[in-house]
This record gives sequence, C-alpha cells and structure tokens, in this order.
Amino acid sequence: MSSAVQQRVDSIRKYLTQHNLDAFILPTADPHLGEYQAENVLRVNWISGFHGENCIVVITKDKAGIFVDGRFTVQVKQQVPSDVYDYLHINNDCHLNWTMEQLPEAGRIAVDASLFDINWYNTAKATLAQKNHELVSLPENPVDLFWEDRPAAPNASIDLFHCAGTSSVEKRQKLAAEMQAKGLSAMVLTQPEDTNWLVNIRGADIPYVRTTLSFGYLQNDGSLDLFIDTSRLPEGFAEWAGEGVSTHDISAMADVLPKRISSDSRVYLAPAETNAWLYNLVNDAGADIVEGRNLCALHRVCKNETELNGMRAAHIQDGIAMCRFLAWVDHEVDAGNSHNEESFASKLLTFREGVDGFLAPSFGSISAFGPNAAMCHYHHDPENCRSLGQDGMYLIDSGGHYNDGANICGTTDITRTIKVGDASDHERHMFTLVLKGHIAMDKARFLSGFRGEQLDMLARQPLWQEGYNFDHGTGHGVGHCLSVHEFPTRIKAGVGENGIVEEGMCMSNEPGYYLEDGFGIRLENIVAARKADLPGETPMLEFEAMTFVPFDTRLMEVEILTAEEKQWVNNYHAQVFEKIAPALNNEDRAWLENATKPVA
Amino acid sequence: MSSAVQQRVDSIRKYLTQHNLDAFILPTADPHLGEYQAENVLRVNWISGFHGENCIVVITKDKAGIFVDGRFTVQVKQQVPSDVYDYLHINNDCHLNWTMEQLPEAGRIAVDASLFDINWYNTAKATLAQKNHELVSLPENPVDLFWEDRPAAPNASIDLFHCAGTSSVEKRQKLAAEMQAKGLSAMVLTQPEDTNWLVNIRGADIPYVRTTLSFGYLQNDGSLDLFIDTSRLPEGFAEWAGEGVSTHDISAMADVLPKRISSDSRVYLAPAETNAWLYNLVNDAGADIVEGRNLCALHRVCKNETELNGMRAAHIQDGIAMCRFLAWVDHEVDAGNSHNEESFASKLLTFREGVDGFLAPSFGSISAFGPNAAMCHYHHDPENCRSLGQDGMYLIDSGGHYNDGANICGTTDITRTIKVGDASDHERHMFTLVLKGHIAMDKARFLSGFRGEQLDMLARQPLWQEGYNFDHGTGHGVGHCLSVHEFPTRIKAGVGENGIVEEGMCMSNEPGYYLEDGFGIRLENIVAARKADLPGETPMLEFEAMTFVPFDTRLMEVEILTAEEKQWVNNYHAQVFEKIAPALNNEDRAWLENATKPVA
Repeated sequence: MSSAVQQRVDSIRKYLTQHNLDAFILPTADPHLGEYQAENVLRVNWISGFHGENCIVVITKDKAGIFVDGRFTVQVKQQVPSDVYDYLHINNDCHLNWTMEQLPEAGRIAVDASLFDINWYNTAKATLAQKNHELVSLPENPVDLFWEDRPAAPNASIDLFHCAGTSSVEKRQKLAAEMQAKGLSAMVLTQPEDTNWLVNIRGADIPYVRTTLSFGYLQNDGSLDLFIDTSRLPEGFAEWAGEGVSTHDISAMADVLPKRISSDSRVYLAPAETNAWLYNLVNDAGADIVEGRNLCALHRVCKNETELNGMRAAHIQDGIAMCRFLAWVDHEVDAGNSHNEESFASKLLTFREGVDGFLAPSFGSISAFGPNAAMCHYHHDPENCRSLGQDGMYLIDSGGHYNDGANICGTTDITRTIKVGDASDHERHMFTLVLKGHIAMDKARFLSGFRGEQLDMLARQPLWQEGYNFDHGTGHGVGHCLSVHEFPTRIKAGVGENGIVEEGMCMSNEPGYYLEDGFGIRLENIVAARKADLPGETPMLEFEAMTFVPFDTRLMEVEILTAEEKQWVNNYHAQVFEKIAPALNNEDRAWLENATKPVA
Repeated sequence: MSSAVQQRVDSIRKYLTQHNLDAFILPTADPHLGEYQAENVLRVNWISGFHGENCIVVITKDKAGIFVDGRFTVQVKQQVPSDVYDYLHINNDCHLNWTMEQLPEAGRIAVDASLFDINWYNTAKATLAQKNHELVSLPENPVDLFWEDRPAAPNASIDLFHCAGTSSVEKRQKLAAEMQAKGLSAMVLTQPEDTNWLVNIRGADIPYVRTTLSFGYLQNDGSLDLFIDTSRLPEGFAEWAGEGVSTHDISAMADVLPKRISSDSRVYLAPAETNAWLYNLVNDAGADIVEGRNLCALHRVCKNETELNGMRAAHIQDGIAMCRFLAWVDHEVDAGNSHNEESFASKLLTFREGVDGFLAPSFGSISAFGPNAAMCHYHHDPENCRSLGQDGMYLIDSGGHYNDGANICGTTDITRTIKVGDASDHERHMFTLVLKGHIAMDKARFLSGFRGEQLDMLARQPLWQEGYNFDHGTGHGVGHCLSVHEFPTRIKAGVGENGIVEEGMCMSNEPGYYLEDGFGIRLENIVAARKADLPGETPMLEFEAMTFVPFDTRLMEVEILTAEEKQWVNNYHAQVFEKIAPALNNEDRAWLENATKPVA
C-alpha cells in the first residue's frame, strides 16, 4: 500500500517540478462543497489512502502532510503510510503555516480553486503573500492526470419528481419577485439540493443524497440556466421544468455565465457555499456581487403540504421497518443468537428494503453496542465489530430516502437506544433524562422565526438539572428526498439567526448523553414546525412528530417521569400503535402492543 | 405655563443669535448617560415643561420640537405647550432630519457634547456635514445661563461603605492585572456605580441610585484618579480608599486627563457609556482608544459572599415590610375601607421605613389596580388615581435600598399581584401561567456564561403553550446598594453576549402578562446565580431566591399546576414563613400562616 501511495505522491511531485510549482493543497471536497462526494472525486483517498471526511492534504517536493480532525486521528494512522505523510491536526495545526515552513523563498502553491470556498481562497492568498509566496489557481486538477482506474463520473438516472407540490415556474417566480424586491439581477445556485428542488428533479449522483450534480444561474425574470449533465436529462424534462429553463453541461459555465453578466448585474451568492473558481468567474465577468445567506434554501426548507404529506407517509413506512427490526432484535436477544453491530445494521436495511417506496439509506447507519455508542460519530468496521451480549444497551441511528412515485416521498432519520442486556440503574436514569429532554423539545411552542439556539436548551434542561450535558446540537434540518442534513435549519447553541425556525421546516429532535468508555444514548424523532391552534392572542408554532416508533419503556425510570411526561409517552405510543400496527404481522403486532403499553 | 416656557425658549433663541448658531439640541441626560438625573440637570423639564424620560428637544430660531417615545405621547401634550413645541415621536421621526428641515443653508447646530454618547455625536456630525451643516460643541450649556432658581447641585453626604467585602486596593489590583494582560494602559470609568464600587463609597446624588456622581481614570498599576466633589469627601477617605487614589473635582478632568495620557497610552473605554466631550478629551490627548464593554462592570456585578449576605439580609427586611403591607391590604379590603393606588403605595413606604436598614426606595413604585396594571410603565398620579373596589387584582412593583452599617446591606425589587376583588377565571388562569414561568426560571440550571436570552424562554414557555406572551425581558441585573437596574446582566431575547450569567450575579425573575384595558400580572423575585452541587460531571449554575414574600394562592388555578410546581410553591412558602414570621406580630403572623398554607 505504501508503495502505491508513494508512487502517486511522486507523480504529483513530478507535476509540480514540470510546472515550476512548490506545493499542492488538496481538500476532501467537490465543486459544490457539500457533505458527501461522488467516488470519482475522492482524490484525497487516492493520493493518501485516507477514507475519512474533512481532510486536507499538502504535498511539497520533499514533504507531505495530512490534516484530519479529532474523529480521525486513529484512523489516519491505520490508512495512511507514515513514511510518506506527516499526520497533523486540522484544527491545531494551520495547514498554511505548515506549508510555508516547507517552502523555499517566494514559493508557488497550487490549488484546484473549485474545491475551496472563496473565503479560504482569499485568506490563503493574503496569508501566503505576506511571506512572498504565490497562490496559483490551476486550470486542471493534477490528480486527474495520473489517476488510473479512476471511477466513472456519476451516471445515475435523473428522475422527474412528482411529489413537489409546487411547479418549477411558480418557485422561480417567487424567487424572482424576491430578487426584484432586493434589487438583485440574478443569483448563483451552487447546491444541487437547490437546483434539483427548483426544477423538480431528483437523482443519485453522490452517496446518501438524492440529487443530480448541477449548478444554476437564476435571473430576476425567473429564467434559469441549469448546468447539468444534459446527456442524462430524461424525456419530457423541458416541458416538466416549464418556460425559461435553458440547460447546459456543467463545463459550459465558463462560457455561458460571462455572457449573462454585465457591469450592471447585481449577482447574489452565498460565499460559504460558492467555490473560489466560480466566484472569481462571476466577479471577473464584471458583476457587482452581493453576498449573503442562501436565499433559495430559505424557500426550500419550508415544506409545502404536499411535501409534508410525502414526509409523513415516508415516516410511516420507515416506522414499519423499524418496528419489525426492533421486534426482531428482541427475539434474537431472547433466543440468545449470535449477532454483532454489522448483522444488526444489515438486518435493518433488509427490513427497510421490504417496505414501500424505500430508495436508499439517507446516511451511513450508526449501529453501536455499549461503549461504542459513546462515540457520536462511530461507524463500525463490518469485518471486526462489537458483538451482542456484553452490553446493556444498543444504539441504532439510521434513515432512508423514500419515493414510491405516488404519496410516499421523503427522508427519514431516527435514533433509538434499546435494552439488549442488563442495563444498569445509571443507564436507565440517563435514558430517562434524555427522554425528558426529548419530550420538552417536542412539546415546545414558540414564536415563528424563533432561534433554534434558544429551543436547544429545552432539550438539555433535564440533564442540566443533574449536571449532565451532551456535546452536539439538539437538531438539524431534514430535506425532502434531498439530503438528511439540511441547512440552515439548526437547533443548536451558537447558530444565531442562521438557525431560525419557521412553519414547514422539518428537523430532528435528538438529545443524547454519552459516558466515555461506558455507554451512549440518543433519542431522535423528526418533527415539523406547524402553526399551533391556541386560545391566546400571539401566534405560535409547535412541532408535529413525524417519526412513529416506540421508545424503550424497559429503559425508563418511570418514577422520575412527571404525570405530564408519562401522558406524553402514552399518547405518543398510542399513536405509534394506531399508525404502525395495521401493517404488521401477528407476531410483530403483539410485540408492538407490548412495546406501547402505557407506563404508569 | 405657556408663557414661562415661551420665555425660556426665547432666551435660548437669543443665545443662538448672539453666537451665530441656528439650532440647539438637548436630551434628557447628564454626563454619565445613566437612567436617572439629579434635579439640577433636568434641563429638558425647564425648557419644555416635560417631566418624562428619553426625550430630545430641538430649538431653532423659529421652531421648537420635542421628541418622546410611545410611553409619553399622551403626557407630552398635557405638559408641553403646543404653541411653542411640535410633538414628535423619537423613534419614527429622526430629530436630525427634522432639525435640518428647519435650517438655512450651512447651518450651525449646537450641543452640549457631554450629554451625548460618542456614537450619536459622530453620526450626527457626519449626517449634518452631508448637507453642509456644522455640529458645534459648546463650551457651556446655554440653559444654565438663563435658569433662574436652578436647583442646587447634589449635596448628599458621601459615606464610607463597610459592606463591600473586598478592599479598594484589591479591586484595583485585579482590574490592573486584567489591563496588563490585555495590553491596556488605563481605563476610563464613566459610571458612578463603578467608581463608588471601586473605592467602596456610597452616596445619594441622584434619585433611586446610591452613588456619588464621579468619574475615574484607572491605570494598569492600580492607581486611580477619582473625579468627585472633593469638598464632600468624608474624613478618613484617603485611608479608606488606600494607596494610589488621587482625588480631584470633576471640573479638573480637562486638566488632569491630558497629563496622564501620552501617545503610548492604550486607553480602554465603553463608548455607549462615554459622553462625547470626555471621549474627545481622551482622544485629543493622543490616546490610542480601545473600545469595548464596560470591564469594571463585569467585576462589579459578580457579587462576593459579603455582598450576597448583605443582599440576603436586606431581602429579609424587605420581606417583613411587604408581608406587613400585604396583611394590611387584605384587612383593608375585608373592612371595605376606601383606598386608592396612592394610599396603598404610601402605606407600603411606611412599612419599609419601619424595618431595619431601610434607606430609600430603589425606584418609583408601580401601584396599579385592574387595567392600569396592563401598562408596564404605569405611574399613578397621586392626586387623581384609581380606587380600590372596581377590580379583581392589584399589582405592586417596588423596592428599596438598605444599609444598617452592619449586616443588612443591599437593594431589593419585588412585584406581587394580589387579589383585591372578584378576580375572574381568566385572571386566575393567566396568573397561574405567569407563576409557572416564574417557577421554571427559578428552577433552571445552566452552564456558567450561559446567555440570559436563552434562559428567557423558560419563563415564557407556559404562556407560549397557550399563545400568550409578554413584551419585556424576564430579568435585569440588580446592584448592591447601587442601582436597581444593573447592566450588563439581562434575561432577555436579543442581548447576546451582553447578557451572560455568571456566579454571584443578582437579577430579577419577573415574567408577566398584560391584557390591554383588562389587567396586568407580574411576579418578581430577585435571584442570585450560584454554583449547583450536582451528581453529573458538568459544572452548572442555579438560582438562589433572595426574595421571601408569598405569592397569592387565592389567584392560583391549582389544578393546572404540576405536582412539581405545587411542591415548589409549598417549599418556597415554607421558607417564607420560616424567615419572615419571627419578625411579625401575632396578627400578621396569622395572616402569613394562612398565606403560606400548602396548596394541594
């Protein structure tokens, strides 16, 4: 393995020498700067052997460094040869400073600018210039020149999406009106979630995300230039998208955008989501760039009634699969059969594949026994993972994308923590505190536009009452058959006005508690914000639970639940039974009846 | 009245003509820019007849305008002659634009720069310059030249303050160390609360605030220039304040500060609390000004154990007075005696004057029957106010400063809403929702440095559950025998990091509900943030209630209180009885026993 990585690094070094360059900086990213990437752009993996996220590789003529975050400090040593790379911490070690330390005077540092956001690019340029170094934006990515057996570019089908509820024309007109009101000429759309939502298509170009890779340029008359693999556009697309949509291949952006832009153009974009190559293209074309939050996303995340109905139906199917799985787990535990984290995770996938409309997992499942669940970002090694029988609790965090072409259409994300052995009193106590937080968040009512960072503390208050806390946000937005982590919706301290909650937003409610080397608990439902019908004079929003799967009553310390909390559990479980039981066979229905028995 | 105001305005106009000026802008403020002012600087009152707060007067050669906020739009018409002044809204009408509309080309607009903060001053200068007008900083305040029978400058005694717990030397050394760590040479102290706290004195120069007016210049070696009326300094002050304190009259600032400042000086100040005259003095002396939050206040508001003990003892005395008052009210109501808002307020003052250590009210009491209580800023007219007998509820918001020279030393602020007639079911319901919010806030536990804006929603959640809200913050800081509204402590949405809560801070917990033309409810205790002793691994703060006075159980809709809330009420009332009963006579003790009977 070492020699393959060494050869690849050497090929990049040869490129540097040929082009009079001193270093090459490469991040895990594609030109959309999103969470996941297609296989054919996993260049960091090719050049280093590293499989994790959020990584930067720097190659100079005689050194190479790999920068990873705290989640991957062990993994990087297993995957990346130490004789080729220095291991560095992405937060503690500044990759720019490290690079400059390796360089001669007036070095030339090369990047593929389409893989960095404009803020990084400008900061890097200025930082390097202070020491007389130059940031060089390459016309190509050198990795692509040497990558033999490179996976093919995404080639999944592009599907017309029938569960949108609003036509592309209507969506574009709404955004056009908003642009006109703000005095904007156009906006650049860099997120495939936005472009797919805007023309009502879906795809499967990258793992876990139901989009076709694409960019857009939307003008204030509602006309859209859609940059996408046009060879894959399905029959009838033009009619489907409606008037005003021109399609081009992504490679045509460099030609088309400058033709659209004049010195009068006030062009809106979200800098954190716009790669530096594209930003500079728009800027060099003479546009007056107006920066701000992703305006299209603010429309997209507030779902209409058709989308919400699709989400509700998807969650029922997901609930059926989850209940079958949990019934099966109880049976296997009782029977004393051998299982491990992988066999549980793959069995759950089988159950999901057995319900209506299931397309694919919405993220990599976290299937964790005992102490493994204390690692929030744990992913088991299928070949070598923890077995059932040693621990009191099992945590399963998973979800799916659903679309049956009719009513079932949406994305799920659920975490349950269940009893699979002798759970201790402390485990049950902490489970119950987390449940109390989940209930408090679920019952919250609040002003429209209220900040998620303020709601966040409701879920923590029961833990805080006893001096416990958890080190992640309480919730994230969930897309409508797009991506399971949908920005900007966030229930999390510190997100400020980026985390406001408005009607129609779907998000997770997932407080947890993690005792290092001990156990981990997380209880997650998806909820949607809706108008509350109340006696008072101030309009309020409330949450509607979308997920219907029982919480494990065996882990509840019922004595510390208030009467109101017990009532919540019993009401919720009654709804679970009502919605899920009809789809179950007799055995599973009996299990569900028992699992949803009222607590008192 | 009109003619007196007219003559005064005319005298200012004569001054304008003599000095080649076109307008004079005057706010309700003194050079400390605080909440209250001494009588001798109530210049707006003299020039217009207006008695309210937060007002700006503009006088040109032929027009005069008075700008007031929404609380005073009625009052201004009653107090200010309409043939002399135009009435304007301070938020809706920009006083600068209005001024410019009245002016000739290249007008000269005069101000006393010591009455505006530097941000106003710079903004005004730039705004006026855009239209070729000039902002002129006068060497005097013209009102003072014409004000016959002007009240004398404050002449209250300055008292050495024995309940501080920390010596001036120690306080100054701590701030000096912080300045050294931040690379600061000195800080400008503009708030009498800071200077009085820093040298451990108290005074009574302005209504409701226990300070002597003064400024300070604290250097990073701990030495302090204190600008104060030196003729009033008490015997032994120099020894009391300790090494390194130089005293000067306030008028000496213009001479002394430039001598302290060189071009090397990095001088810290809080711009929102620094008047423009002083800011410009420091700036013109060559200092490198570093702007930020009031650093001294961040030390002052975190009270030490001596200060907290003084506060606790003051609240016991205040509780005794309040319980005697509430017992008396019940007796008077039962007896059918005639009373009104004024007779209730003055009787309460009599009870406060009867307990140990009482010095003075900490603010003007709000004594309000029925619909008057729906106005948060209501102040009854003693001559013509609402009578007992028409309404179900009475709201009394009041407080005192205490100092017996020994253990009783602090400031109180309490609101109770009580039954004085036939309270409706809706009134009782809303009372109970407000109480639930008060309890939730009281029971909160949270991370040190947590933001008050996040805690704020705990107090609102019971109201929000039914679609009700209240339009003020849940809490404000309370000083230690200084001022009852102590910045920056705030439990309020939107205050951001200005409202963090730390150990030793005292603040109010005062949710409310107001139905316009109907009734008003507010339930206020003072609480102190302290370390919680909890089983978990994450350190938390909690609140300690300082106020001990019963909440009116007759207004509680006990059925909607949870078991935990009833327990809180009963525990709290048991503490009230234990702490207050020993000081009461038999009749009042019987009243308290009944008022604190457990609810079930």
